[in-house]
Amino acid sequence: MTNAFTRLHPPKGRSSKSYQVKILNSQVAKPASSSTFLIQMGSLQNQKPENGFNSTIKPLDPEEFRKQGHMVIDFLADYYKNVEKYPVRSQVEPGYLRKRLPESAPDDPEPIEEILQDVQKDIVPGITHWQSPNYFAYFPSSGSIAGFLGEMLSTGFNVVGFNWMSSPAATELESIVMDWLGKMLKLPNEFLFSGGGGGVLQGTTCEAILCTIVAARDQILKKIGRDNINKLVVYGSDQTHSAVQKAAQIAGIKPNNFRAVSTTKANAFGLTAEALRSTIKADFEAGLFPLFLCATIGTTSSTAVDQLSPLCEVANEYGIWVHVDAAYAGSACICPEFRHFLDGVENSHSFSFNAHKWFFTTLDCCCLWVKDPSALVKALSTYPEYLRNKASETKQVVDYKDWQITLSRRFRSLKLWLVLRSYGVAKLRKLLRSHVKMAKNFEGLIGMDKRFEVVVPRNFATVCFRISPIEIGKNLNVTKDEATNEFNSKLLESINESGKIYMTHAVIGGVYVMRFAVGASLTENRHVHLAWKVVQEHANALLKMS
Amino acid sequence: MTNAFTRLHPPKGRSSKSYQVKILNSQVAKPASSSTFLIQMGSLQNQKPENGFNSTIKPLDPEEFRKQGHMVIDFLADYYKNVEKYPVRSQVEPGYLRKRLPESAPDDPEPIEEILQDVQKDIVPGITHWQSPNYFAYFPSSGSIAGFLGEMLSTGFNVVGFNWMSSPAATELESIVMDWLGKMLKLPNEFLFSGGGGGVLQGTTCEAILCTIVAARDQILKKIGRDNINKLVVYGSDQTHSAVQKAAQIAGIKPNNFRAVSTTKANAFGLTAEALRSTIKADFEAGLFPLFLCATIGTTSSTAVDQLSPLCEVANEYGIWVHVDAAYAGSACICPEFRHFLDGVENSHSFSFNAHKWFFTTLDCCCLWVKDPSALVKALSTYPEYLRNKASETKQVVDYKDWQITLSRRFRSLKLWLVLRSYGVAKLRKLLRSHVKMAKNFEGLIGMDKRFEVVVPRNFATVCFRISPIEIGKNLNVTKDEATNEFNSKLLESINESGKIYMTHAVIGGVYVMRFAVGASLTENRHVHLAWKVVQEHANALLKMS
Repeated sequence: MTNAFTRLHPPKGRSSKSYQVKILNSQVAKPASSSTFLIQMGSLQNQKPENGFNSTIKPLDPEEFRKQGHMVIDFLADYYKNVEKYPVRSQVEPGYLRKRLPESAPDDPEPIEEILQDVQKDIVPGITHWQSPNYFAYFPSSGSIAGFLGEMLSTGFNVVGFNWMSSPAATELESIVMDWLGKMLKLPNEFLFSGGGGGVLQGTTCEAILCTIVAARDQILKKIGRDNINKLVVYGSDQTHSAVQKAAQIAGIKPNNFRAVSTTKANAFGLTAEALRSTIKADFEAGLFPLFLCATIGTTSSTAVDQLSPLCEVANEYGIWVHVDAAYAGSACICPEFRHFLDGVENSHSFSFNAHKWFFTTLDCCCLWVKDPSALVKALSTYPEYLRNKASETKQVVDYKDWQITLSRRFRSLKLWLVLRSYGVAKLRKLLRSHVKMAKNFEGLIGMDKRFEVVVPRNFATVCFRISPIEIGKNLNVTKDEATNEFNSKLLESINESGKIYMTHAVIGGVYVMRFAVGASLTENRHVHLAWKVVQEHANALLKMS
Repeated sequence: MTNAFTRLHPPKGRSSKSYQVKILNSQVAKPASSSTFLIQMGSLQNQKPENGFNSTIKPLDPEEFRKQGHMVIDFLADYYKNVEKYPVRSQVEPGYLRKRLPESAPDDPEPIEEILQDVQKDIVPGITHWQSPNYFAYFPSSGSIAGFLGEMLSTGFNVVGFNWMSSPAATELESIVMDWLGKMLKLPNEFLFSGGGGGVLQGTTCEAILCTIVAARDQILKKIGRDNINKLVVYGSDQTHSAVQKAAQIAGIKPNNFRAVSTTKANAFGLTAEALRSTIKADFEAGLFPLFLCATIGTTSSTAVDQLSPLCEVANEYGIWVHVDAAYAGSACICPEFRHFLDGVENSHSFSFNAHKWFFTTLDCCCLWVKDPSALVKALSTYPEYLRNKASETKQVVDYKDWQITLSRRFRSLKLWLVLRSYGVAKLRKLLRSHVKMAKNFEGLIGMDKRFEVVVPRNFATVCFRISPIEIGKNLNVTKDEATNEFNSKLLESINESGKIYMTHAVIGGVYVMRFAVGASLTENRHVHLAWKVVQEHANALLKMS
């Protein structure tokens, strides 16, 4: 890709138009200047002004669309082919782009060739390559051909599916696909449309949690009166995603009334029913109203699992809405051997996972199921005159605008539908298992090097590890936790700075760990082996220095 | 397009795999059966299992991506070429799709050819064609080649740009493009990064308003104490978008404390400072705390404009946060002749418009500027350990996760950047003006037929009109408002049922109007003339019948 766009002269601001460009995989490969560029996104040729009303831009000219669309497909295919060559974590400095781009938008059209050249030159270096096979940071953002094509179709139709009427297929396909997925996850029938519940595609888990908190809030306030809003309490653990606290805050829950119940290593950093019960009890006795519990299957820091069955039992005693956040690990639960992690979900109120994390569906795509859609609708429904229509009046249709924060919504189900059909359930399971196997393999490599240790048990395809305090003590002549954490932090930074692989960190029970999350769509076992070599090399160098 | 996919046998559930398909504009055009299909999204050929770890799916194989990407580009190019042939408003019945699709996801992969065939056969009939040149409903969802390509790049890179670190280019391009756009709109410097403010891309106006309400709420509660949350009041007019009331509700504002201040025809359905002042005064005297005003430039029903200067004056007296919602009309304000509608914005706190409505940027893309980003950050910031990084610590970078509801965010600025560069400011203005001119032309056609009347003055490219009560009285022998409304409602339904054009309605000051919103990217003046003919024909028929 680095050879795809060759500038013959160095760039100088807007005047870059006059450089010669060579474009790979495109029929257009010729020297060009601002005056000779003929191809414009808006098809400047073939213009037949019509009674003076027609503009010189035809923003959706089909043949121009075809031509330029093919160019960008080729650009991206080359990007994937070459993505391994880029440093995984971007190495730019803050403010790099402002120095390169003009201060204002151009007055005149610029050709797609020049824009793609600038994407390559100015944008690609500033990208952290989540699609790189050497990307093991955060959680994966696993793109796929099917997900991409679905997104293209959705963008191409560009419908605004706020209610059934505005594009029936957008609503109906979503309901169908959510039932399909619900069945794949063996969710109880009450979460499916056929069982009186239903699923909806949100952008992210943050939105899913906000919607369910608001639904739960309005349900209880109806009983106890709005004056008690400051007495509502939301529960999670100290491992719960920050999205829950943020959603509670947005929903007007008093910031002091979010409980991050402590977890311990002894319980593998899962929230226990005992800890939850004693926290709730204390609140209840203090005159507060327990509102909402977010239980997590696969926490962000260490993929810990909260035991749903006992937690739901406690929550149900107090009439608390239980949301199950399986943002990352939900995908794996389509495999029978992982499904047990969801045991107890039948006693929760809502369940969500992100298809855009580890399910080959491009960002954004969060799948939310609720047992009682009317709770969402009561809290989130609007029905202004200009949206009134026959279909909604009959109440035979779902109007998803009432299941979410926003009115406008994209046709997200297309990408999920394409992913499910293109790969099929059996192969999706196989693919997820291959990631788990690669993580297991990495774990095995760690096990063979006594300087390292796996810090928490691996549940899925993410390994939390570090150089052990013993090893560091041997070298640094200290065994303090702080020194160990600091060393591992330095090691991680040195690895990431190399650009060869990218991992991120977490601090779990005071222990700084490197997180190795397998799941990028291009990752193969050889990348895992390479990654381990990189880790060892950097560890060797750093240990030698110390 | 109807000929692009020819089924030789009628469909029968999942067994459809065995049909022969012919695909236009694709190198692959051959009879196929479930066993002979070789091309799979996941590249089933070229598989070299590697130590048994590799799955049989390669979800991002570059050459497979290239091949299938080109197919979908051709599919969409053909869609645009033929979009005029489809009924604009979908004519399916509720539940149509469930009858056609299987009850569960397939176990085995299905080929892209078959999926595209099903998109054509099952999805396209259920789409309301927002990209049709005969689409005049709601507001436009104006797609463009540049917007589409930007979305492709964003989806292709598939980065999760929650903070600067996670993909610096995503954050930096957004800040730059928002400054570009802010300058095009001649927003005061305080809204730009250079002036201490800044812009952010949200999904929709609903989110933008929720974020600003929450920021305003937390600012005031810090002063007056959280116990007063039930005394906060949010203001809009009876023409304000339902998003404001919904956002207030989500943010925990008491539902009774949303004021939809009445507007009148005398003030062209704009909110007046006098009406606002008296409402606020009454609340203030009742011991409530005025919190937030949403002023609208271009309301949804009739594109009415609230006069910002006097409204901000009143709001500022009471220390109210003023948000300016120019979701639809903001685009037009890049033209000097429309900019006066924003006069007074300098005294507001935040401003937003939807680039996905009438600015050729595909859904979703709402542009929000605030004078004081720290107000957003204080209300919406989270900083969990696993997101800690050097760049954020230095505070030299923007972490957009703290400017919005969700943590994960797409690389939306790419599409806006492509739109601005591909078309340039001058041609974008020209294009917007051409839409206004077409609307003016439609108004002219109405004026020549005395049976019709324009109900409210046209400000932009949307015309609100109806058959006048006089005409209906002549025919129905009644002059009642109700009969007029009912007749126009029947007329609109008859027009929309024809599938030839699609308009929607509003009720403004008790008057039912048909809304004719020009702005679909493929619309030319000939479509406007055709639309008027359709309206007249249906009116003739209906008047004859009555």
